Amino acid sequence: MESSNIRLAVIPGDGIGTEVVAEGLKVLNAVGVKAETSEYDLGARRYHASGETLPDAVLDELRGYDAILLGAVGDPSVPPGVLERDLLLRLRFELDHYVNLRPVKLFPGVATPLGEAGPEDIDMVVVREGTEGPYAGAGGVLRRGTPHEIATQESLNTAYGVERVVRYAFEKALSRPRRKLTLVHKTNVLTYAGDLWARTVDRLSLEFPEVETDYCHVDAASMFFVTQPARFDVIVTDNLFGDILTDLGAAVAGGIGLAASGNVNPARTAPSMFEPVHGSAPDIAGQGKADPTATILSVAMLLDHLGLTEAAGRVEQAVADDLLERQTAWTPRTTREIGDDIAARVAG
Amino acid sequence: MESSNIRLAVIPGDGIGTEVVAEGLKVLNAVGVKAETSEYDLGARRYHASGETLPDAVLDELRGYDAILLGAVGDPSVPPGVLERDLLLRLRFELDHYVNLRPVKLFPGVATPLGEAGPEDIDMVVVREGTEGPYAGAGGVLRRGTPHEIATQESLNTAYGVERVVRYAFEKALSRPRRKLTLVHKTNVLTYAGDLWARTVDRLSLEFPEVETDYCHVDAASMFFVTQPARFDVIVTDNLFGDILTDLGAAVAGGIGLAASGNVNPARTAPSMFEPVHGSAPDIAGQGKADPTATILSVAMLLDHLGLTEAAGRVEQAVADDLLERQTAWTPRTTREIGDDIAARVAG
Ligand SMILES: CC(C)[C@H](C(=O)O)[C@@H](O)C(=O)O
Ligand SMILES: CC(C)[C@H](C(=O)O)[C@@H](O)C(=O)O
Repeated sequence: MESSNIRLAVIPGDGIGTEVVAEGLKVLNAVGVKAETSEYDLGARRYHASGETLPDAVLDELRGYDAILLGAVGDPSVPPGVLERDLLLRLRFELDHYVNLRPVKLFPGVATPLGEAGPEDIDMVVVREGTEGPYAGAGGVLRRGTPHEIATQESLNTAYGVERVVRYAFEKALSRPRRKLTLVHKTNVLTYAGDLWARTVDRLSLEFPEVETDYCHVDAASMFFVTQPARFDVIVTDNLFGDILTDLGAAVAGGIGLAASGNVNPARTAPSMFEPVHGSAPDIAGQGKADPTATILSVAMLLDHLGLTEAAGRVEQAVADDLLERQTAWTPRTTREIGDDIAARVAG
Repeated sequence: MESSNIRLAVIPGDGIGTEVVAEGLKVLNAVGVKAETSEYDLGARRYHASGETLPDAVLDELRGYDAILLGAVGDPSVPPGVLERDLLLRLRFELDHYVNLRPVKLFPGVATPLGEAGPEDIDMVVVREGTEGPYAGAGGVLRRGTPHEIATQESLNTAYGVERVVRYAFEKALSRPRRKLTLVHKTNVLTYAGDLWARTVDRLSLEFPEVETDYCHVDAASMFFVTQPARFDVIVTDNLFGDILTDLGAAVAGGIGLAASGNVNPARTAPSMFEPVHGSAPDIAGQGKADPTATILSVAMLLDHLGLTEAAGRVEQAVADDLLERQTAWTPRTTREIGDDIAARVAG
């Protein structure tokens, strides 16, 4: 992308979603990127008002943007699964976000629950598959509510889907100093899917001789996230394992308030969507208590995806500087104050 | 069980399996329980010698024991998945080990990677389902090795299977001071299976009004294991989520060298099997470096299962005392020395 005039769809969502997105946009503005933004009211509010989750017409409109910024959606008043399946996951599937990109990086100055780990130990990127696996929604139920009920849940994996995300992960690994790619799966139990993933990594490794590859069962990986996070550089994994590992990763890298993510369509057949890993946190909504940092880092990922590398770098650096200062500044700031401070750093 | 003369099948297995099992038996002997033990050669060695994993005749014999003690099986020389599926998982399925019981407990004096957590924060029991879910082995592959390959993996869940493990978990929660039971699943994505699990917990909670129930998505749970482990008392969860969470639990509770487990058939239609959570660790095998503590704690669980509560308590106490002393005693001990020391405490 040559121009820096981007067309951005914004889905603030529910709860703290609206609060953190406001700060993300503030920083986007401060970094000098010209963005034409349109807001979309999707989430619990709309669901209650109209019963709609993601109308087809809205989905079609969204396809026309360069990127999407999402805050968070969800509220306990909505039946569980509805917004997840019909809005969040539908966006990922319809817009073919086959890479769910989640950096797990401990910034200097940030406290981690791990007593002995420092920034040099926790610096990885999880490339989570985003469009298949156990998230396909396949499965069924028979004799619901009876003693004879059975419920199934099917993981669907295709050579097409696995190859493209593994290829992306190899390229990502190649772009990083360590050039290490770890496949995380459970090949000894999920033998059909695991075999496809493992063979795909083996095959593509021939195209990327500079990248060192490694394999780790998901149970062992979850242990190593805590005991030896430095083992990992780039991880490629299935949709569900990636979901679990990236929340764990957020925890070890300073908490969910800092974890950014991109739902990326690397083929660019549809806009990619960037969002904090955290949810709508109804318990603290409207109180200015939410940390907008995860959203601001998601904005940096968005800029990077659009080729605005310099702007992305400036946002990330401003966040890094702000985080370093939090260590000593013990006055807690509001959502807006954190946004203001980071925006000021970016601008100045 | 009235008598303390137990008939025990022992499967030392491969690698460090044989080393740690020897210490487990030493402690069993020291605690004064009369055990008639028979050793079964199963694992990588037997597989290479005869191609056998678990001959039907051996399985039938195993059914005749009061309990089984397993060290660890596996070796890189065996194709991945073979011993897991045809030996370990087959034992769990054939002997109907529908409760995979895994305490996650930080003993005083044991170092945890979590900087701020102490024994009062980490004391839970994970009740992992052991005979269905994604471990059923259901699934298939089409057009293997071609660009059109698809691989599926199916999770099978039955009312029968879910109810019995949830009931066990409620009873376990009732027996503990906090009386709290948390269901861990991913109901917002795995909607068919999640719905069955959630409804089952809701229904049984009416029978256990003294037990407080809670729900946590598996991704959030993995975060809380690190940031707020004190949230959890008893956890009940699916086979795969339990696999991941208990390795993570082992990590936060001082490492895989201390993590014990029981594959329990509470209906007692077949013997239960007790084993350390760790594997055969071929890299350190034969060097006396393995920590036998996980196996010794598994022996305590075995005694408890057989109703030998007093003996179980003595073994656990001896381990607790030994662990407390490790804090200050900085001379590393061999596998055998640790076994000797714990056996001496148990006897004296
Ligand atoms: C809300 C839920 C469907 C979603 C997921 O499981 O992917 C969330 O946990 C995430 O990680 O973005
Ligand atoms: C070896 C493997 C099949 C097994 C499992 O996945 O259950 C192991 O990880 C465990 O937790 O006992």
